[in-house]
Amino acid sequence: MLKESDSRWLWYTGDFEIRQGLMQNFSREERSYDWPAYWNIDDCHRNVKFKRDYVLDQETSFTVYVSGVGFVEVNEVKYPFGQEVTCMPGKNKVRVNVGNVSGLPAVYIDGEIIKSDTSWLCSNFIDEFPAGWSELYYKKEQDPNVVEYATEICKPLSKKDIDGGTLIDYGRAVFGPLHIEKLDSDKPITICYGESETEARDIEQCYYKQENVTSETPIRKRAFRYIFIPDITSASIEINGIHEFIPLENRAVFSSDDPLMNKIWDISVDTFTLCSGLFFIDGIKRDRWIWSGDAYQSYFINQYLFFDEDINKRTMLALRGQNEIKQHMNTIVDYSILWVIAVENHYMMTGDTTFLEQIYPKMETMMRYLSQQTDEHGFIYGREKDWIFIDWSEMDKEGTLAAEQILLLKAYKAMTVCGSILNKEIDQYVACYEMLKKNVMEFFWDKEKGAFIDSYVSGKRHVTRHANIFAVLFDFVDEEQSQSILTNVLLNDDITQITTPYFKFFEQDALCKLGETKRVHEIIRDYWGGMVEQDAVTFWEEYIPEETGNDVYEMYGDPFGKSLCHAWGASPIYLIGRYFAGIQPIRPGYETYLVEPQLDSFEKISCTFPIKDGSVTLEKNQSMLKVYATKSGGILRIDNQDIPISKDQEMVLELKEKSLV
Amino acid sequence: MLKESDSRWLWYTGDFEIRQGLMQNFSREERSYDWPAYWNIDDCHRNVKFKRDYVLDQETSFTVYVSGVGFVEVNEVKYPFGQEVTCMPGKNKVRVNVGNVSGLPAVYIDGEIIKSDTSWLCSNFIDEFPAGWSELYYKKEQDPNVVEYATEICKPLSKKDIDGGTLIDYGRAVFGPLHIEKLDSDKPITICYGESETEARDIEQCYYKQENVTSETPIRKRAFRYIFIPDITSASIEINGIHEFIPLENRAVFSSDDPLMNKIWDISVDTFTLCSGLFFIDGIKRDRWIWSGDAYQSYFINQYLFFDEDINKRTMLALRGQNEIKQHMNTIVDYSILWVIAVENHYMMTGDTTFLEQIYPKMETMMRYLSQQTDEHGFIYGREKDWIFIDWSEMDKEGTLAAEQILLLKAYKAMTVCGSILNKEIDQYVACYEMLKKNVMEFFWDKEKGAFIDSYVSGKRHVTRHANIFAVLFDFVDEEQSQSILTNVLLNDDITQITTPYFKFFEQDALCKLGETKRVHEIIRDYWGGMVEQDAVTFWEEYIPEETGNDVYEMYGDPFGKSLCHAWGASPIYLIGRYFAGIQPIRPGYETYLVEPQLDSFEKISCTFPIKDGSVTLEKNQSMLKVYATKSGGILRIDNQDIPISKDQEMVLELKEKSLV
Repeated sequence: MLKESDSRWLWYTGDFEIRQGLMQNFSREERSYDWPAYWNIDDCHRNVKFKRDYVLDQETSFTVYVSGVGFVEVNEVKYPFGQEVTCMPGKNKVRVNVGNVSGLPAVYIDGEIIKSDTSWLCSNFIDEFPAGWSELYYKKEQDPNVVEYATEICKPLSKKDIDGGTLIDYGRAVFGPLHIEKLDSDKPITICYGESETEARDIEQCYYKQENVTSETPIRKRAFRYIFIPDITSASIEINGIHEFIPLENRAVFSSDDPLMNKIWDISVDTFTLCSGLFFIDGIKRDRWIWSGDAYQSYFINQYLFFDEDINKRTMLALRGQNEIKQHMNTIVDYSILWVIAVENHYMMTGDTTFLEQIYPKMETMMRYLSQQTDEHGFIYGREKDWIFIDWSEMDKEGTLAAEQILLLKAYKAMTVCGSILNKEIDQYVACYEMLKKNVMEFFWDKEKGAFIDSYVSGKRHVTRHANIFAVLFDFVDEEQSQSILTNVLLNDDITQITTPYFKFFEQDALCKLGETKRVHEIIRDYWGGMVEQDAVTFWEEYIPEETGNDVYEMYGDPFGKSLCHAWGASPIYLIGRYFAGIQPIRPGYETYLVEPQLDSFEKISCTFPIKDGSVTLEKNQSMLKVYATKSGGILRIDNQDIPISKDQEMVLELKEKSLV
Repeated sequence: MLKESDSRWLWYTGDFEIRQGLMQNFSREERSYDWPAYWNIDDCHRNVKFKRDYVLDQETSFTVYVSGVGFVEVNEVKYPFGQEVTCMPGKNKVRVNVGNVSGLPAVYIDGEIIKSDTSWLCSNFIDEFPAGWSELYYKKEQDPNVVEYATEICKPLSKKDIDGGTLIDYGRAVFGPLHIEKLDSDKPITICYGESETEARDIEQCYYKQENVTSETPIRKRAFRYIFIPDITSASIEINGIHEFIPLENRAVFSSDDPLMNKIWDISVDTFTLCSGLFFIDGIKRDRWIWSGDAYQSYFINQYLFFDEDINKRTMLALRGQNEIKQHMNTIVDYSILWVIAVENHYMMTGDTTFLEQIYPKMETMMRYLSQQTDEHGFIYGREKDWIFIDWSEMDKEGTLAAEQILLLKAYKAMTVCGSILNKEIDQYVACYEMLKKNVMEFFWDKEKGAFIDSYVSGKRHVTRHANIFAVLFDFVDEEQSQSILTNVLLNDDITQITTPYFKFFEQDALCKLGETKRVHEIIRDYWGGMVEQDAVTFWEEYIPEETGNDVYEMYGDPFGKSLCHAWGASPIYLIGRYFAGIQPIRPGYETYLVEPQLDSFEKISCTFPIKDGSVTLEKNQSMLKVYATKSGGILRIDNQDIPISKDQEMVLELKEKSLV
């Protein structure tokens, strides 16, 4: 952790994330072409001014290093970069102007007193904010335009001659380039990649392939477990994977007497770790794009695994882009709304008002943007080219949708929460909330069906799970309505099942919230267990138990379109931490927090989950429960009884039969 | 000239100009540092989609070349770039997605039927327009990110040993790098540059200097006439200037029996040519920035010299940036307004409705932006950080300013003209004009003084020339008021003189407009003649006849801060063409045009000026006047008589004594 007074690279606030987000969204490759994301993507500013005034007691010197071109100015005298500048005692107005036509303008100031610490302001010549920085860039030799990955050399787990070529299994998902150690061949080789053996061996259809490779050829970063090299014997080639990653600390521990659950946990951790770099991406093989809906779920998983605040912030800043909004996030209206909701969750997780202050103006512009597409009832609708996604499921999408309105309601709530913290005017959001709530109940709640209908315009009064799930998750319905939704929708097999893992996340979340942890425990063992049975080393973008053979790999009409390592596949981490261990913040940053374990599905379990500035450990062995937290403010809720948790003191409880958690 | 069906590089409309404008505005160098412009500068889009549908009779193939990464898609099947793609007969939806993280995304499509001609659309995934292109980029080997300059090798005119070093005079302004032909020295050399000999020999204070130069060192592009190299004998060094330029055709001819006027003309041409590259820049030595006020005057000079429509368009597009406006052009409110006015002038000059359609939405957003800072009288005011420039002159700037309002009036007029052409709704502009006009006359016109006052808030009722000049130029006052302004302001020595060449341009323009060509003729001979006397090879940013010695070079508090080659110094070209030759369009694109010569200051003169798709030649010898035009639609106005000019037919007129023009 950098101290406030440590030098670090500075940039226009949010610009590092926007710039690197652009690079991330342009890194997709498919077969023999690149696939930059298909929405309008902002870039960083091209010129920035950094400002600080110093009142000096004594003479002092400093040197400025930059990514870009420009000058440093002291009391209106200009100097070049890279050369020591001396300031005299008294007032010194220090300014650094940096322009960069092809990357992020950034500055590092090296000096004893005058240095690029957290006290600098940045200006785009219009607005002024505290300068942006990252824990990742604190040495003058670095360049914030270059991502510094840690690497791990992955040697083949097995190598065999097959189909006249060599098939290598690295036994794990690798995300990085390859390095040829040995190549005994006069002819250049072709490398075919696969997340599965089937894919690697399909030299025509595999998603990635690099041709004309000699031992000198740089090999592009890709995601794979297998490679197949045609027309070469296994003895003639030695080739390692160079796995690249941004180190993230896994702060959770899970072990139980259920080997399958342990395995599911471990694979979830691997999956999520692989999809967490500078940003939360959807998956490592295919898009590698930053999708707001996928990221939304990743924030929740992160909260129970890495508790890494920076990756949340980077992802939210990259998604949001510059202040002016031209288009919905990833073109999807619901994704814009989820972004607003996520900020509140991040604030509850971290209690970080500094970040909230940074991002709040961008929440406001987003709310303004959203409000421009609401009708007389306050209902949000899609405009031409807007994508009203919700989910891939069949749904009555005529007119405005209940699911979209419930998201918007939650966004208004998020604004009132975040606005209040910062002492902003929130009356408008309260008013919008009340009006919208009234109309949603009037137009979308069907008393007879005891559920929300998709849409009211068509008159079909069709019910799907989505709006109802959101209503439960976002506390929009009372106890009675919740139970009605549980009975009439969630546990009603006549209502079309959720088919996407994306929405399965929300569904499990809602089920747990309604007390159905036992059911969800079974679902985890069945559904995720099903992938484990199929030798998964990471969890998939989609798993349909009925599928067999090569169909398993098909998605979006592409025989290998499915990503076998997809962040949202890691949801068991969140579900176990949030509902089985039962840990959640009550006040921002876990100033107070709840531990309400629901462990009756486990005989023996030992787990630790991170919280802000601490962790909570639970150990259950038959009827004995131990609880240990490294932070005060915790409340253990068992059998409707609240027991304060003392910091660093192990509590041992004998569980009564009926309160067995 | 490219034919519509010729292949060319395509980009998102306006983006080439925005991207290269950014590069231009970042190219400033001063002493040992770079100085990127200090306002918020837009960049091009980072990802763009190009679209065209073809209905084919026969199979055809094409290949796509790009600057960037991405793919080409035919009927939703994707292909890599650089590889021949074949289309079958029938409907073919061709799409090209290009992303470029560090430059302009651009595409060139090579094929017999499917090719990147003028029929393609570009999309930023939000809006769709005809794709942008330039006459400059039409070969697939080119890259629109690279400006291709023509070069001219400039050998020294003289070389002498002085102060222990070598002084070289190239005898002309050079704008480019240097190339060392011979260097007999073990030690690296230092090159000191000067637009003047004085500057080059001032090794401490000269504006540019490059140290540690060996014969291998690349030498940066700079503007200079002289170089001085300390500590070397002239025999030991041979070094040429490599003048870089974008070829522009000088389409005007001027020669008279007044050698001084001829010289002034020639130097004006050299000056203006040097400051005209991809864009109109202020000057070649110092800023090299695209300033809207400077550019405004350059459009007028261009009209009578190159008649190059492209450089106008490039400059206007670069100045305006992307659609969203965050700040006034160059931070200056008047410069934003002048930009709007300039579009109308460009339209009158060219009759180019295609460009007008392209730029009109950006005029509208600019008008909306301006209207956000008008008060209850419709008066525009400056907000915090807005620069209300008008001129460097002393002026009563309390409250809203007359000069600014008169510019705004003209902008409303420009909107009504341009809007009408495109059949847009213009009522709002008419209404704004009427209201503002009424209020300007009520608050700023001082009947007693017979002039506009600067500002009414202070109660000082101070009169300067500026608002009055604009009122004349923009036809905002009637005949009587014009004469009153002439007498009470322009010819009144008690009113502070204009001291900047920037505003001198407008002043001469207004004087000529009020019939004072004879006076202006004298001013040109005196003022510009003064610089000629001082051995000027180009005209200066500022010329104060009283200044002598090194003071001549000082400006902005810098001993060599003055630019000795500044575009606005070339105004004689415009004044001569517009008022002495008297040529101006009456209808857009010179569909009809006026030739109203005022040549009584010349005994003998022969001149040709370009007009749209043609030229007009005037030859006067004593009382004989010949007029020749290569385009119909001309009207020769002499002695208040209008005579139609026939195309390609020389008219010879005997000038009556009293109508001697």
